[in-house]
Amino acid sequence: MAPLLFSTIEVTAQAFYRTSLSYAIVNLKPIVPGHVLVIPTRPVQRIADLEDNELVSLIRSVRRVGNVVQRVYGADALTIACQDGPAAGQSVPHVHFHILPRKAQGDRFSEDKDAIYPELETGEASLMSELHEHNEAQKPAGQQQQHKHQPFKVDADEDRKPRSMEEMVKEAAWLKGFFTELESKELQDQVD
Amino acid sequence: MAPLLFSTIEVTAQAFYRTSLSYAIVNLKPIVPGHVLVIPTRPVQRIADLEDNELVSLIRSVRRVGNVVQRVYGADALTIACQDGPAAGQSVPHVHFHILPRKAQGDRFSEDKDAIYPELETGEASLMSELHEHNEAQKPAGQQQQHKHQPFKVDADEDRKPRSMEEMVKEAAWLKGFFTELESKELQDQVD
Repeated sequence: MAPLLFSTIEVTAQAFYRTSLSYAIVNLKPIVPGHVLVIPTRPVQRIADLEDNELVSLIRSVRRVGNVVQRVYGADALTIACQDGPAAGQSVPHVHFHILPRKAQGDRFSEDKDAIYPELETGEASLMSELHEHNEAQKPAGQQQQHKHQPFKVDADEDRKPRSMEEMVKEAAWLKGFFTELESKELQDQVD
Repeated sequence: MAPLLFSTIEVTAQAFYRTSLSYAIVNLKPIVPGHVLVIPTRPVQRIADLEDNELVSLIRSVRRVGNVVQRVYGADALTIACQDGPAAGQSVPHVHFHILPRKAQGDRFSEDKDAIYPELETGEASLMSELHEHNEAQKPAGQQQQHKHQPFKVDADEDRKPRSMEEMVKEAAWLKGFFTELESKELQDQVD
């Protein structure tokens, strides 16, 4: 299968779900457990730039992936958000929906539900540079870009650490198990 | 045409766009100019409860309405958000996408883009009670529910006032003009 690009960054290893027109990846710095991104396969910046079949595939993947992450992370609801354009806070110029499992009790945001949004925005702001640095760090030294490698940024107001590639691949493999071949095939047939 | 219900509240007068499976309304208390809601016609609480054709109609309406409000309100981008379930801050138990036109310069949130989210959440928290009170206030006295009518709530941290029905109807009529009969027909045929 073709490698998956999120804008210019390859994210195949983080992907846990794909149809021919859309896919889902785990996050470098999830705001809550199970915070994932659903992305159209073709890298366009705005929802308005998607073909109709890409848009339909995208929302079906949002629903399918949302159902699974809510269930397997033991959540009660989902925050679904798309920053459609830079003036809305989009940092990676490739359409993506954030899906965040939410718990009524017992998660970081259950007492103050709106506190999740500033953190979503802060995370988004550094997403592109972090993904890029992470991607570069995975390459053999000779293939890395010649600028100085910078340490991962950590958001100023909390100590959320970027995860290792190994950790992300492990989570992606675990999530893949919830999308059976049969289900994937059915969805694939339906979507494309 | 059948009246449009947002949960148990009739919102036909605020609607400016409809297909047989989804519709869009202007807001009682828009957070930014052009802040509208896109809603599946059938009142179900969660995205997971929608039939596939309802989900497809909904996202096509999100895109179509988003394109129009971005253009006619002179914006540069869109914040698109769905609080899918009470634990995500949903207050009206009927699926709805918020669409908020965003400007790179010159709107209330252009300097601090994430400040829009807490306000979105605060607005959502009082949406049901406000809509209900507004709806009751429109009825002849004899048809109003017998509980004491309460004044509109105003969010604690700012002085955003609920708008009059007249003002909302006027905005809805203006927006309707951007959806030509031809465009509506094309979309209708495609969706349903």
